[in-house]
Amino acid sequence: MRCEVVAIGTELLLGQIVDTNSSWIGEQLALAGIDSHFQTKVGDNFERMKSSIQQGLDRSEAVICCGGLGPTQDDITRDVIANIMGVDLIRDEAIVEKIRHMFESRGRIMTDNNRRQADIPAGASPIPKMPGTAPGLYCPVDNKVIYAVPGVPYEMREMMEHFILSDLQKRSGQRAVIRSRVLRTWGNSESGLAETLGDRIQQLDKTGNPTLAFLASGIEGIKVRITAKAEDEAAAVQILGDEEAVLRRLLGDIVFGVDDETIETVVLNSLRKKDMTVAVAETLTGGVMSSRLTSSDPEMTSFKGAIVFKGIENGVTGTDRALLAAKKAKETYNADVSVAAVEPCTSEGKPRGTVYLGVMIGDTSFVEEVGLPGDRNRLRNYAVISLMNYCRKLMS
Amino acid sequence: MRCEVVAIGTELLLGQIVDTNSSWIGEQLALAGIDSHFQTKVGDNFERMKSSIQQGLDRSEAVICCGGLGPTQDDITRDVIANIMGVDLIRDEAIVEKIRHMFESRGRIMTDNNRRQADIPAGASPIPKMPGTAPGLYCPVDNKVIYAVPGVPYEMREMMEHFILSDLQKRSGQRAVIRSRVLRTWGNSESGLAETLGDRIQQLDKTGNPTLAFLASGIEGIKVRITAKAEDEAAAVQILGDEEAVLRRLLGDIVFGVDDETIETVVLNSLRKKDMTVAVAETLTGGVMSSRLTSSDPEMTSFKGAIVFKGIENGVTGTDRALLAAKKAKETYNADVSVAAVEPCTSEGKPRGTVYLGVMIGDTSFVEEVGLPGDRNRLRNYAVISLMNYCRKLMS
Repeated sequence: MRCEVVAIGTELLLGQIVDTNSSWIGEQLALAGIDSHFQTKVGDNFERMKSSIQQGLDRSEAVICCGGLGPTQDDITRDVIANIMGVDLIRDEAIVEKIRHMFESRGRIMTDNNRRQADIPAGASPIPKMPGTAPGLYCPVDNKVIYAVPGVPYEMREMMEHFILSDLQKRSGQRAVIRSRVLRTWGNSESGLAETLGDRIQQLDKTGNPTLAFLASGIEGIKVRITAKAEDEAAAVQILGDEEAVLRRLLGDIVFGVDDETIETVVLNSLRKKDMTVAVAETLTGGVMSSRLTSSDPEMTSFKGAIVFKGIENGVTGTDRALLAAKKAKETYNADVSVAAVEPCTSEGKPRGTVYLGVMIGDTSFVEEVGLPGDRNRLRNYAVISLMNYCRKLMS
Repeated sequence: MRCEVVAIGTELLLGQIVDTNSSWIGEQLALAGIDSHFQTKVGDNFERMKSSIQQGLDRSEAVICCGGLGPTQDDITRDVIANIMGVDLIRDEAIVEKIRHMFESRGRIMTDNNRRQADIPAGASPIPKMPGTAPGLYCPVDNKVIYAVPGVPYEMREMMEHFILSDLQKRSGQRAVIRSRVLRTWGNSESGLAETLGDRIQQLDKTGNPTLAFLASGIEGIKVRITAKAEDEAAAVQILGDEEAVLRRLLGDIVFGVDDETIETVVLNSLRKKDMTVAVAETLTGGVMSSRLTSSDPEMTSFKGAIVFKGIENGVTGTDRALLAAKKAKETYNADVSVAAVEPCTSEGKPRGTVYLGVMIGDTSFVEEVGLPGDRNRLRNYAVISLMNYCRKLMS
């Protein structure tokens, strides 16, 4: 089963918008076991759109068109698909009502242009999920299919997740459910992980289910993705759970989270469970840690505050400076826990990238020396995840 | 003159990497007056690469292939292009030496795989600019051309800027030099800008040179791009300068910077010139302002520090809270200038998105009330640029 993606919009070709939709769709198709051999960007031009979509349909069993479903004169995806299908557009009055209702609930008036969004090629149908004012289109063409989704990422994703992916799987005759889970790690290299998991990967290669993949994600660590195939959801989840347990035994405490969990949400959850608060001293990290913490804890219930400053005066060791900085943050905000990442004094003669991680929990102090790579901005971000991860391990 | 882009790499289709190269190339082509009607992503597969590149060549006068020039077995762009040209690959010994030298200067050994990178289709030539170990390829095919560049963004950009763009312009018979400049603005909507500049745009439409375009850039404001065409560099720069002066007169102080200047670099430069320092109180902005300031001023010479905290206690007005927060930051770090963005107290009954910008310069206090859109994270970022821009205007 092959499915191409055609991303529509002159602004994509002009580089005014980066086409992240196709990448996301490509990833979802791969996870669902569907091949995607070509992805095309084309401008808002009738003939060129037609040739791209038609070519996709010639080469593959399905095409997902992304964009060009809006209310303006540029938005001609509906028209092009109707032309390919050799049919007329028919206004769907139920969709008109849905759009009118959406506008009214936002206190706005529906225009004639918006009515155009309810035009559906004869023989096609609207995709049941409709999170915005543009319905997606499900357009059978002989034994193949064109799906059209809006370019708004949220709307596109909803339609993919709740209709298109399962429809593609049904069409491919694939009864299997494919699910994946990501274990997020910090503290080992990709080659180190490959070595630790080498035997396990060899074992899994024999059955081919589940499979493992490493995704290096820079300042967010390395992800280990487990992908399982099974007869139904429950069985797939069972395989994922079993494999997660095996991997956690092998990997130990370098696993800090699962799927979308970031290091800061893990630390904040741990604090919340213990009814504790944290304060931060940002000398090296210069505000990056705070911006991540406030993003996850906007009400600042667990994160009490931070001081951003140039650093403790020279003349003491990096270890001392880390602890002094953590202490200062802890006292300033009267928090239960405090953290600080600092650089050594120049007089210590430490190699570039040396960072001291300081953590105080209650009255107990902890310091770790680490070596981190990268220019100033990468170093700052590596220091944030290293420090949070150190704090996580100390609190567990 | 039409030029297509073919981005090569299975990882692009799988969504493991977002194809930002094509977007960048598309923007550069547009600025150089060259049309790009199709951009394709294709995996590391001989037949599919061949069909994509061949199709590009059928539809357009030039194709830029991006990726697949590395040393591994997956990297077959060279082979595919040789096949399309109907020629063999010939090892270029001068390039082998260049690669060997690069490896040796980094203390590494060149492998046989790296030698493959010096294979050039007969009749093609290496692109003169070669910033990495993969030479770009210049491949004439009848009266058309294929360029191949590495997928490493830095290497690709160097080759585009120093060879491909000017070669394309020469081929198009276009002798003109095209240059552009971006004026960055904050404080007016896109429709507001269009109205302010309406007469000027009409005037320019008559000559078509220079041209103006608006680029809405969300939390970074709205950019006004001036594009000028002239016989040589000096004449183009003259047109840009003249037009910038006209636009600055029309737009007034909403223009905060030019090209890559961010609002924080503008504020930091202004502080540096006056030999002044700044401190920040981050309640609403929660660390975002600090992380931007330390990124531009890593030594913290002008930015002295910040306090990140939940906010001044309730019971005073938003105006008072903004000033109290700014005062607190100023005193904590003994800075010449201080800034704070805060939300009103709930008891004030202000609409959602109301933000108070507080600035202290010496002993003088300033407050401005603004209404900002978006969810929490967007609000935070809009508050940062609004506050910095307010500070910029007060200091000018």
